[in-house]
Parts: sequence; C-alpha cells; structure tokens
Amino acid sequence: MPDSRPRFLRACRREPVDSTPVWFMRQAGRYLPEYRAVRERHGLLEICKRPELAAEVTVTAAEKLGVDAAIIFADLLLPLEPMGMKLRFEAGEGPVIEEPLQTEKQIARLKTDGAGELAYVGEAIRRVRRHFNGRLPVIGFAGAPFTLASYMIEGGGSRHYVATKSLMASAPDLWAGLMDKLCAVLEPYLLAQVEAGAEAVQLFDSWAGCLAADDYAQQVLPYSRRLIQAVQARGVPVIHFATNSAGLLGAMQEAGAEVLGVDWRLPLARAWEEVGFRPAIQGNLDPVALFAPAAELRRRVEAVLEQAGGRLGHIFNLGHGILPETPVENVQAVVRWVREISAAQQERLRSRHG
Amino acid sequence: MPDSRPRFLRACRREPVDSTPVWFMRQAGRYLPEYRAVRERHGLLEICKRPELAAEVTVTAAEKLGVDAAIIFADLLLPLEPMGMKLRFEAGEGPVIEEPLQTEKQIARLKTDGAGELAYVGEAIRRVRRHFNGRLPVIGFAGAPFTLASYMIEGGGSRHYVATKSLMASAPDLWAGLMDKLCAVLEPYLLAQVEAGAEAVQLFDSWAGCLAADDYAQQVLPYSRRLIQAVQARGVPVIHFATNSAGLLGAMQEAGAEVLGVDWRLPLARAWEEVGFRPAIQGNLDPVALFAPAAELRRRVEAVLEQAGGRLGHIFNLGHGILPETPVENVQAVVRWVREISAAQQERLRSRHG
Repeated sequence: MPDSRPRFLRACRREPVDSTPVWFMRQAGRYLPEYRAVRERHGLLEICKRPELAAEVTVTAAEKLGVDAAIIFADLLLPLEPMGMKLRFEAGEGPVIEEPLQTEKQIARLKTDGAGELAYVGEAIRRVRRHFNGRLPVIGFAGAPFTLASYMIEGGGSRHYVATKSLMASAPDLWAGLMDKLCAVLEPYLLAQVEAGAEAVQLFDSWAGCLAADDYAQQVLPYSRRLIQAVQARGVPVIHFATNSAGLLGAMQEAGAEVLGVDWRLPLARAWEEVGFRPAIQGNLDPVALFAPAAELRRRVEAVLEQAGGRLGHIFNLGHGILPETPVENVQAVVRWVREISAAQQERLRSRHG
Repeated sequence: MPDSRPRFLRACRREPVDSTPVWFMRQAGRYLPEYRAVRERHGLLEICKRPELAAEVTVTAAEKLGVDAAIIFADLLLPLEPMGMKLRFEAGEGPVIEEPLQTEKQIARLKTDGAGELAYVGEAIRRVRRHFNGRLPVIGFAGAPFTLASYMIEGGGSRHYVATKSLMASAPDLWAGLMDKLCAVLEPYLLAQVEAGAEAVQLFDSWAGCLAADDYAQQVLPYSRRLIQAVQARGVPVIHFATNSAGLLGAMQEAGAEVLGVDWRLPLARAWEEVGFRPAIQGNLDPVALFAPAAELRRRVEAVLEQAGGRLGHIFNLGHGILPETPVENVQAVVRWVREISAAQQERLRSRHG
C-alpha cells in the first residue's frame, strides 16, 4: 500500500496512507526563533518579495518541525498591491490597508492585469521545490475573494464586517464586480504558483464564517468555485479553508475542493457527516491547545485522530494558524504524536479488515 | 387560542401565538438617541446602579420599538464587582478589568457572598414591572460562568482566549473552583431578579462558541445547567444564548433551557433539527442586516420567519446585540414586519390545519 508519493498528496486524494499527514497553518511564523531572527532584519513584505528569504523561512520551518508539507511563506494580502492598494503591517496590529474601498469609483479603479507583479511568490516556490527535490510537497495559497474583499473594504481585520456586509446587501452588482476583479487577479496568481511547482493549493476564506449560509451561497461561493476549478484543471488538488464554518460546510462543499479545512468548533466526525463523507478533511486541533501541558496536549491530539477514525483523507492541522507565543517544542511533539498514534491506528484498521 | 398571557411568554413554553414575539438583544443601547442623551450625563456603571435610570432606559427602548419584551438594562460584568474585581468602561474600547486573574491566590481571594450588593438590578426590575403592569414581560439576565470567567482572566474582550483555555487545560481543578465561585454569586443574583419580577431570564454565554464541543460539555455545561435549573425551580423560563454555537447546540440543549438563542450562522431550520425540535429557539437575524436598504432588510426578516416555518416556540431576535450605528427606524420596521408577516403565516397554517 505505501507508494512513493508523499502521504500529504495521497491524503488530498483520499488514498491510503501509512500515517496521517500533518502540517500547520502559519508554521513559518513568529513563534519560531529562526523566523524572528530573519524578521528582525527584514520587514514582512520584504521577506515575501525576496524569494531567497521567503524560501528560507519556508524551508527552515518545515525541516525543523518535520511536517509532511511546506506551505510557501507569503501574505494573504499581497494581491492587493498589484490591484492598486497600499498595505502596511504595524507592529502587533496586523495589516493596515490605506484608503479602504468606500466608493464605486474606487472599485472601478482597481487594476486586474497586475498578477505578474506577484511573480516573486512563484520564484520562492521554485526555490523551495529545488530544496526538497520531491521529498516534501509544496503548498501554494491565496486568500479567497470574500476574505480579501473584507480586508479591502474594512481597511484591516474586522469584528462585525458592517461595511462589507452592507455593500453585499445594498449594492449586489458592485459586490459582484469587485469579486470578479479579485478573481481576475487571483486566478493567474494561483496558476503561476502551480506553474512554479505548487503541488497543492489552499484557498483561505478565513473570515467567510461571519456570513449566513444563504449569503455565502449566493454572493461568495461562485467566485471561490471558479478559482478552485481553475486550479483543479491543472491537476492540482485544492484545500478550501474557513473558520466558524459549521453553518457553511454544505455550501463550501459545492465549491468542489478535494479537501475542506475546518476549525475545532465542529468535531471532525460531525464535519464529515455534514458533507456526506465525500471530501477529504483537514483539521482541527485548537491552536490554543498547543499551550497545554504535554499530557493534556497529547490527549487532544488523540481525540482529533479518534474523531477522524482513520478515515481516508484526513490531514492533521490546526483549526487556524499557530499563535505567536506558541512553544515550539509542543508543535514538534504534535508531529511526533500524530505519526505514532495514527500509524498504530492504521495498523489496527488493517489487521481488523485484513 | 389567543389568551391573556403575553406572546413572548407563550413562545418560551412553545404554546401557540397570534404572531411571533420579537425583541432585540441590546435594544436599550447606543443606537438610540434617548439612550445617548442619558449616557452623556451618566457613566455606564452609574446607569446600571441607579434603578430609576436603568428602568428609564429599559422602558424607553421597549416602548419606542414596540417589542414584545423588555430586557432589563444592566451590564454582564456587574457580578465581578462584589467578587472583588474592579471594572471600568473606556470610550469605544469596551470593558477593562483591572488585575485580571492570573494566579491561584487571586482566584482564592474572590468573594462569593456579595450578590446582595447587586440588589440595584432587582430594584430596577421592580420599577419596570410597575411601569408595564403586566402589559410587557420583563427579562432578567446574567452572563454565564464561562463568559464571565473569560473576561476575568483575559482582562476584557479577547480574540483567542489563550489565558482562559490554558487555565482550563492546565489546571482543571482551579477552573472548576472559579466556576463554582461564579455560580455561587450568579445563582442568588438571578434568583433575586426573579424575586423582583423577572418573568424570564436570559443566560448570556456569548463567547462559549470559541470552545470545542468536548471542552464545553466537560468544563462549562455543568455550571450553566446548575444556574438554569435554579431559575426553573422558581417557575421561570430560561433563554440560553451563545454565538458561534453550531458545534455546541447539542451540548447546550443538555443544560435544559426552555429556549436556545442562536446566531445567524446556522439557519433556524437546521438549528431546530440539531436539537430534535424540542426547545424553543430565539434568533437569528444578522445584526448587520439592520444596515441594509428596507426592501433587502424585509426580505431577510421574511427569510428568518420562513426558516422558522411558523413552528411553536420561535422568538424573533438578532443573532447578537444591536450595533451602535444601527438606524433606529430599521429596528422599528423589523418589529412591524415580524408582526405582519408572522401573523399571516399563522393564519395560513391555521387554515391549512383547520
């Protein structure tokens, strides 16, 4: 049963694996001393834009943790720049977008022909592929149109998404135009990542969980589906992720990704039930569990694997990104435990069925 | 079929109503000019502590909106003061708790015999009851132990609840002790509200939706259930509310409240399915929908009532509190539409069944 293809890619296709593949959202991040050292010398956008730096932090994190996939280091908001918006990152404050979208005129002015300016991400992917040389798959990614639109409209993170939802409700045509423009940039951006060697792509619709299911289905889903299909047409699987998505899973499934990423709020067995056991599922340890004492953390890793029940198509991950103060040794321990516990689980399943 | 008991109280018991009762969380709040006028002259805590002011803002809001119930004006965090913690409210920043709980010693020092200091809330309820004289039911409320504990530990609102969840995971006995202490204050506080005339009680576990279902079931549910049962023993129905609760509804149902309050993320029909159609359900218009143009807002009100399907035991509300910038006339329009649309819906159901 074990073949030469990496277990992460096998799990994306719901093929048998020897142990559950594991990686972490934001695995190259501030909790790592190696990353902080690079970050002291370079700004966040600078790291993203210099392929040798982006590749370095990507590779260092994946090697240090011993995970089953390396997600390219980049920022969700990079595509806003070639569209004509200005970004900056304030210490401890998250992203700030200058002149958030407030008028029809601003939306009309957004450029859609600048995806080529993001070629540095593809170049970083090439470097990471060269480094791993097939040993570890490289994951590309982009923010989904809704999540990017929410940043563009709110000017940064948001609690209630009043401006975004108000645009959706009061000017659906304008909203559709904005989503179209985002797709026009995101599609070539994602395809360039695939071209550069990304072996899977994650679409982060991190904040879609703020929406009611109907609004999501009508005003968000079609655009995410378009991007997912474009990537799939190149033979590359897609992971479609949102937080707080318990009410949206059915609709998200219609977008057709091979893998749905879910957070810790919905037990995995229920998430699978919700989607008729068809897609693979990625998740769903609470990132805050990484702060727990070792015995308790191990118990929680076991609980996630227990919920997954050794089903085909489980990718172990957190329910959201690693938090900045997370102890590195706990992240490393989770990788070891996932291997050990899931390998034993697979062994038990094989002996039961065989 | 119509009897003299208010439709809100009938719906709590899943009895037939002539139209769906409607009220709004935070209906007496900053979006109302009358409230802002009072607030310009008095601090938030001062309004809570002066029964004539708390009663005035409660009554003014309920009369102005024409809703089916008046929730007493108070703050979730009031019980922290008699426990020995200091609160303040910064303009636009939300609550700040001085010296958040960080040590076992601080938890040990928390007082549990001070619920009597909150008698001002009961006095405000008495005044509101006198005003309405049976015409409109008065709802009392308290924050649930988890949500209050999260404020005490994080020192205010939180995004990831790292300190709270870490205490739960690393020191379950200490957590249990803190929850016990909260119950020791919240139980007499709620019973005093009932004694003063509250005809229903809402338990706000606003932030419980950050938890995985297992953690909720083991470390939160027992305490909320204890409070709910204490109120029910006095013959008063309880509304049990959380946001982001799609993964928790089954566990919340075990706490036994007559009514579950849900947010807009889970369509009402699915929420009912999730709990086997047993409890009444309150919700679930997105508060941001109140910013939409009238036609769109009306469509959304219809959609909520359509989802409720005229079932026994629907109480129309938002999925969370009214936001400060909300246009008052939209809130008033929702009350009219709920009456009109749901009365027609009840009429149709009666003629179909009759």
